[in-house]
Amino acid sequence: MYRAPLLGHQGELLLRYTSSLQADRKIVCEVLEVLEAHVEELRESHLIPHEASEDILRELRALKGAPEALFAYRAEDVHEAIEMYLREKLGERAGYVGLGRSRNDHVAAALRLKTARLLLLQLLALAELRSLLLDRAEEWAEVLMPSYTHFRPAQVSTLSLYLASVDEMLSDYSEALAKAFEIALKSPLGAGASAGVSAPLSRERAAGRLFLGKLVTNALYASGSRDFLTIALALSASLAVALSRVAEDLILLSSPQIGYFSLPSEHLATSSIMPHKKNPVTLEIARAAAGEALGNLVAALSILKGLPSGYSLDMQQVNLYAVRSLELVRETLLVLRDIFQKIEISREAMRRDLKEYPVLAPDLAEIISMKTGRPFREVHAELAALVKEDPGGLYGEVERRYGVKADEEAIVRRPVKGSSNPEEVREYVKSARGSVGSLRKQLEELWEKIGPSCSPSAQSS
Amino acid sequence: MYRAPLLGHQGELLLRYTSSLQADRKIVCEVLEVLEAHVEELRESHLIPHEASEDILRELRALKGAPEALFAYRAEDVHEAIEMYLREKLGERAGYVGLGRSRNDHVAAALRLKTARLLLLQLLALAELRSLLLDRAEEWAEVLMPSYTHFRPAQVSTLSLYLASVDEMLSDYSEALAKAFEIALKSPLGAGASAGVSAPLSRERAAGRLFLGKLVTNALYASGSRDFLTIALALSASLAVALSRVAEDLILLSSPQIGYFSLPSEHLATSSIMPHKKNPVTLEIARAAAGEALGNLVAALSILKGLPSGYSLDMQQVNLYAVRSLELVRETLLVLRDIFQKIEISREAMRRDLKEYPVLAPDLAEIISMKTGRPFREVHAELAALVKEDPGGLYGEVERRYGVKADEEAIVRRPVKGSSNPEEVREYVKSARGSVGSLRKQLEELWEKIGPSCSPSAQSS
Amino acid sequence: MYRAPLLGHQGELLLRYTSSLQADRKIVCEVLEVLEAHVEELRESHLIPHEASEDILRELRALKGAPEALFAYRAEDVHEAIEMYLREKLGERAGYVGLGRSRNDHVAAALRLKTARLLLLQLLALAELRSLLLDRAEEWAEVLMPSYTHFRPAQVSTLSLYLASVDEMLSDYSEALAKAFEIALKSPLGAGASAGVSAPLSRERAAGRLFLGKLVTNALYASGSRDFLTIALALSASLAVALSRVAEDLILLSSPQIGYFSLPSEHLATSSIMPHKKNPVTLEIARAAAGEALGNLVAALSILKGLPSGYSLDMQQVNLYAVRSLELVRETLLVLRDIFQKIEISREAMRRDLKEYPVLAPDLAEIISMKTGRPFREVHAELAALVKEDPGGLYGEVERRYGVKADEEAIVRRPVKGSSNPEEVREYVKSARGSVGSLRKQLEELWEKIGPSCSPSAQSS
Amino acid sequence: MYRAPLLGHQGELLLRYTSSLQADRKIVCEVLEVLEAHVEELRESHLIPHEASEDILRELRALKGAPEALFAYRAEDVHEAIEMYLREKLGERAGYVGLGRSRNDHVAAALRLKTARLLLLQLLALAELRSLLLDRAEEWAEVLMPSYTHFRPAQVSTLSLYLASVDEMLSDYSEALAKAFEIALKSPLGAGASAGVSAPLSRERAAGRLFLGKLVTNALYASGSRDFLTIALALSASLAVALSRVAEDLILLSSPQIGYFSLPSEHLATSSIMPHKKNPVTLEIARAAAGEALGNLVAALSILKGLPSGYSLDMQQVNLYAVRSLELVRETLLVLRDIFQKIEISREAMRRDLKEYPVLAPDLAEIISMKTGRPFREVHAELAALVKEDPGGLYGEVERRYGVKADEEAIVRRPVKGSSNPEEVREYVKSARGSVGSLRKQLEELWEKIGPSCSPSAQSS
Repeated sequence: MYRAPLLGHQGELLLRYTSSLQADRKIVCEVLEVLEAHVEELRESHLIPHEASEDILRELRALKGAPEALFAYRAEDVHEAIEMYLREKLGERAGYVGLGRSRNDHVAAALRLKTARLLLLQLLALAELRSLLLDRAEEWAEVLMPSYTHFRPAQVSTLSLYLASVDEMLSDYSEALAKAFEIALKSPLGAGASAGVSAPLSRERAAGRLFLGKLVTNALYASGSRDFLTIALALSASLAVALSRVAEDLILLSSPQIGYFSLPSEHLATSSIMPHKKNPVTLEIARAAAGEALGNLVAALSILKGLPSGYSLDMQQVNLYAVRSLELVRETLLVLRDIFQKIEISREAMRRDLKEYPVLAPDLAEIISMKTGRPFREVHAELAALVKEDPGGLYGEVERRYGVKADEEAIVRRPVKGSSNPEEVREYVKSARGSVGSLRKQLEELWEKIGPSCSPSAQSS
Repeated sequence: MYRAPLLGHQGELLLRYTSSLQADRKIVCEVLEVLEAHVEELRESHLIPHEASEDILRELRALKGAPEALFAYRAEDVHEAIEMYLREKLGERAGYVGLGRSRNDHVAAALRLKTARLLLLQLLALAELRSLLLDRAEEWAEVLMPSYTHFRPAQVSTLSLYLASVDEMLSDYSEALAKAFEIALKSPLGAGASAGVSAPLSRERAAGRLFLGKLVTNALYASGSRDFLTIALALSASLAVALSRVAEDLILLSSPQIGYFSLPSEHLATSSIMPHKKNPVTLEIARAAAGEALGNLVAALSILKGLPSGYSLDMQQVNLYAVRSLELVRETLLVLRDIFQKIEISREAMRRDLKEYPVLAPDLAEIISMKTGRPFREVHAELAALVKEDPGGLYGEVERRYGVKADEEAIVRRPVKGSSNPEEVREYVKSARGSVGSLRKQLEELWEKIGPSCSPSAQSS
Repeated sequence: MYRAPLLGHQGELLLRYTSSLQADRKIVCEVLEVLEAHVEELRESHLIPHEASEDILRELRALKGAPEALFAYRAEDVHEAIEMYLREKLGERAGYVGLGRSRNDHVAAALRLKTARLLLLQLLALAELRSLLLDRAEEWAEVLMPSYTHFRPAQVSTLSLYLASVDEMLSDYSEALAKAFEIALKSPLGAGASAGVSAPLSRERAAGRLFLGKLVTNALYASGSRDFLTIALALSASLAVALSRVAEDLILLSSPQIGYFSLPSEHLATSSIMPHKKNPVTLEIARAAAGEALGNLVAALSILKGLPSGYSLDMQQVNLYAVRSLELVRETLLVLRDIFQKIEISREAMRRDLKEYPVLAPDLAEIISMKTGRPFREVHAELAALVKEDPGGLYGEVERRYGVKADEEAIVRRPVKGSSNPEEVREYVKSARGSVGSLRKQLEELWEKIGPSCSPSAQSS
Repeated sequence: MYRAPLLGHQGELLLRYTSSLQADRKIVCEVLEVLEAHVEELRESHLIPHEASEDILRELRALKGAPEALFAYRAEDVHEAIEMYLREKLGERAGYVGLGRSRNDHVAAALRLKTARLLLLQLLALAELRSLLLDRAEEWAEVLMPSYTHFRPAQVSTLSLYLASVDEMLSDYSEALAKAFEIALKSPLGAGASAGVSAPLSRERAAGRLFLGKLVTNALYASGSRDFLTIALALSASLAVALSRVAEDLILLSSPQIGYFSLPSEHLATSSIMPHKKNPVTLEIARAAAGEALGNLVAALSILKGLPSGYSLDMQQVNLYAVRSLELVRETLLVLRDIFQKIEISREAMRRDLKEYPVLAPDLAEIISMKTGRPFREVHAELAALVKEDPGGLYGEVERRYGVKADEEAIVRRPVKGSSNPEEVREYVKSARGSVGSLRKQLEELWEKIGPSCSPSAQSS
């Protein structure tokens, strides 16, 4: 309906090539909510006839419950489809909806709202995973496990240090994503195509409806940039990579030869030809999610790279990748939570490797160095020579030579902050639990305020 | 020196393939400062002989002024080279330096310090660019310029709206990067190889020396992750892409056929064969910087993707890309600042295009719609038909039909917040200037505290 | 159906997270054709009852015409859905289908077939675009146009040199993609899960059905790698970037201030608020396609990076990105062809810039250098000084000083192979046309042999 | 020297920001060789005084042996530095070198030559690795090993099937890279800045000097594109990812708990704190190389994305990433060859796992299905139930129920082409060895023809 007066008709290939209508399914709720907020503003500013605004609002609210009709139109995007639908329902009066807005500010508004919501859901999932990890870290505070570097047993450590390490990583992302949320949740409404609109509406009041009153001030920045989105995607990709490392740990350490973990059977799949196979498929998808999030980020950033300022249709192509990424990272957090909730551990397997490999050597070198007052590097070289000669005899030889006992229960209680010492982990858990708890409360309150007003069925379409 | 007792000698190809020594030039200052802080902690904890600590500290301080000697060793990395150097100077006593530390926590500490510094320099460059943009936006508040969408003239706007749009974008990144700085500037010292050290040093006190007392608590997270770095790189890549759009604007709008801007001659280069060419080379490098930052980010994230927890040598390969990216984005900010400081503008060229193209049409459609009380969409279609018929006659026809005058000076003064209206831009400038000013002060104070204690020549090597 | 005996039931989140069923729509035809070929092989090898094979084949052929039923199952992927469907139709007998195969070799076979077809379609679209470019280059052989470097007018050139440059680029990709096609079109059937099957079928005969008799020999490589796919994606991404540069040329040179090209109105869209806008939207999507192809490639390669050998479910996540990329590049070629077919040119605008800017300077410097026998660098410096003084007076001054006339018609006829000289372009066109013609014939014959046997409706689902 | 007449002087920041001089170290040999070939052509075409050409050639040849002097100039790039150097040596006469060329065609020529050489070296390293893998596959043809999928033991297989799978993968890349080599090794000389030169030199004859007579015909394509480079980088990145999977296999299967492989001690490193550690560092760098190659590719493609045609300085920024990537992949091939040459295997560890895990189950299901004539799917379900009940008792129960013996030596001899059957692998080795042998000969002959004429010390600078 937009193009006909100036440009005439367009063939199938080109319509399909440029139309975002099907991809817009992911943001249809937000587009409708944004348009509703806009029409409310037009009404409140007395810029269009009151009756027309009421009619339009009624139709928009109906669409929020059943948006499927929109996707049958031959339209450039969901914005045009909505106008087509409104015109069918309301005739010429529908055309009041176009005042004081452009697709440029409206798609930016819908995307900002969608991004903020997805970030909030991600933050909630993250907080829930953290809560569980902290519970487990406390429960398993005393479970001794070899730590690994270079995928070789490194030192005596605790399972709880591992779990708490994931938690501290998540707490960093929690802070970064909260900042991304703040940057995203600002209203571009009223920015128009590039420089503001001539209709004297109140951008501040409009921002109060969906954006907690926050505003992107500059009309050009508001209508022609996607930095709120690339910041969110960039952080999510980084988080996805961090989660892929957790997935890799669980895949490797639950392999039959290592066997520290037993994965819940719901997280396994078998083979169509190999009846004995138990494959860690959810973790593999979680690992692959890092590649997907990275690819989606590259798509977004390289699409935007070098574009002149102001809206160009290139930007539209970012949307699908962006929503996919933000949803995927959230789901990955949920999946990992489910695994950590149901995972079983084998203390025997962990203890087996603690006995099998000379993982106490580094701490023994430190202890001997302190006890004898000799330079650490010399002691280190001596122990390396002993390991080379006879790894199995190391501990005995150390006790004989230096009078130092290889006691893993003592050594794991390292005397420094943040170490494998169960007391250290417990202290960390206590402090982290407090902050996670209050964070969850805040996030839930925010969700109450900015969660979608669309019906769930529309959302999931 | 590390490998010999256990593993023997290594050939040239393999040493070159795995050694990071040359790449470590970029972080040699930070490695030395970190080691110095560590030895001070050993001394203060009375864990090594006082005299040995003094000797070692003296040598380390000498190295901070002249680190070049380190790069001649046949070493795996700068950490080993330093120990080799110390042993040459101090003999066996040098070996005290190895107590209570691992390369894993020390390289993490050096990288965190380097990252925090580079982020701080980036934030400073960003604040300086913002200050200049705000000055220019005020100076040129009334300069009318066409805005562009899809690289076609779109609406009447102001040059100052453009400049302020860049400023608001930078303010978003300023907040995000400040968060990245907070995440980076935490001390991993004392985390050891993976689970904390057995030497009873104070991690909290050690953190006070270089990290403002902030700590990465968990020893495994501290020694085996690079999230602080990928978060910084991810945000920098996003910023670099945003800056590439500014570069593209300047390249396109200074092209001879458009000519809104004249670039300072220092930012141009000519051709080896074409004596008339004036090529915008610094802007081209600034545009390419987005591709570099994106590539470096992909290198970092895909190297880390799927690694098990704990240090692996893969991580070493991230460092060079990371430092290059963070430096490059900072330099790009400096280069853009230099351009905006010296750029000349052509009001005539801007005015020429405002006359040539019917850029008032969108606002006229709004004004007519409000004046006549008719639906915007209908008026939009009528104006589109008029443009199709005779673009040059649009304004006359509009005045005749609707009694609305096409007055660009009036229209640019759009009645909404954040619009092209010079008053709006002035108000924005006033408020932004205040926050930039206090931010700069904070950043400079931080730099006083955490800037390098190395000599400049070492830093630049 | 695979998991129940060993692993029991799975909840919604996890099924959705891991199932590829909806994404498999893109390869359902190929999966069915591959399974059909396999069952024919089982029949021909007398490995299963003849009647059972006939029943299964009948059902598979029915599914090829109407695969929609498959996507309603609660299945891990389309392979399981097909077995579920067959069991519903045929009962236990359906289970014969599982002999001598694994999903690992079958999904590899379907993907190889799909990839080969998409590459072939890409090659065909590429050849058609080349044919058109060659026609246009001949038609417009004598049209003088400024060439550009650094987006500034550089030299006098011809439109046909530009068109032929795109053609030569495409001819390089044509060769590279043909090699990728050869690598893709090999049969993994019979490779089983990882090491070959125990059923004595003939892999060579099976390869004759869909793969022109070509075989991936090694069973582990056949079942557990995706190099055929990443090679195709890597080359397509490189091509997409090359095409984005063509799109950028057309966007910039059709901008109103430059105006060398008028884009066909079907390739334009207008604004919802700005009634005068004519935005080059198909070209913007074509430009964005480079970002998408690059992102998809990064997803694929970073998913695969560091996986151990043998199939892992990570690989499944590559598929959707891969098909999207290969289709997108083909569509972009079709869109560009449509544009070059309908594009209009403005000789006046080109001539205007040839007069306006001193684009003859570089060749004048060469001519003067040769005429006077003086070093080129000196002449270059003299002309640069003249340009600096008075660009507009350059040609007059050159004629006065050196007796050399600034004749663009003569200069454009440069005396070297492959130059802007219309005779050179015509010669190139003649030779290229011959090779494109025979290539198209070969490609069409190949398509006859390996095109899908599914009904079109199934394919497009 | 180029910029002064038109544009004046430039400050330090901007020179450093834009100059490629230091990065040009990597291509200085090729730049000199290309310039030498050009001056020879000018001489042979009688376009410049004979004596001047002799003087210039003499100086260029001297530089080829000792190019270090060039890097001290204050120059935009190595091309300008060479002209500065020549002018110092020869005075104004040096300026003859500028005729009939541009930096645009010359840097393209140098990069094409460098790319072709690096691809050839990569192909040679690849062929050498293949030769070794084939030797080892033959030597270890009968060594039984579990194959893996999802990093869990899958089936009985052979070590030789694994080695041959790497070989077949490499043979695919060998073909693709040979095509990339063909595309790269074409001469752009004489293309000038964008449209050919006015000096009547022979491009065909010039191409005979360094490019085996092959030509990029179109002057615009020749001077303003980098597709030859992105194609090479794209394939190398894909290969690097494939090699990272080999590295991962070796890292995982040499872990102490699995222990199939013992890595040569030269490929291990130890820890600065953990005296017992043996870390597979060369393999970790080889794994990280995939991330580097991917990042470098993304840098290259996203820098080029959306650039208008013709040279822009953005392209310069690609070079360093490109050379790094192509060198890195070659070194990775050499490192892997060294590992496979020295690696030790543990038949005991492999046999241990073949006994421990029911890896014969899939083939038993096939054999039972064929023996009993029952549908495979039913048998598969029965065996899955047996595994669930008692994995250790599976084989006994199978023999009792179905009369089928679990004989791994028989089962590994699967009756299909390309399977784990040692006879199959031997046959493959025989055929592959022939083609690798003749390929190596060809590659070595090519290297004779196009290897550098620079002194080694210059090359390595």
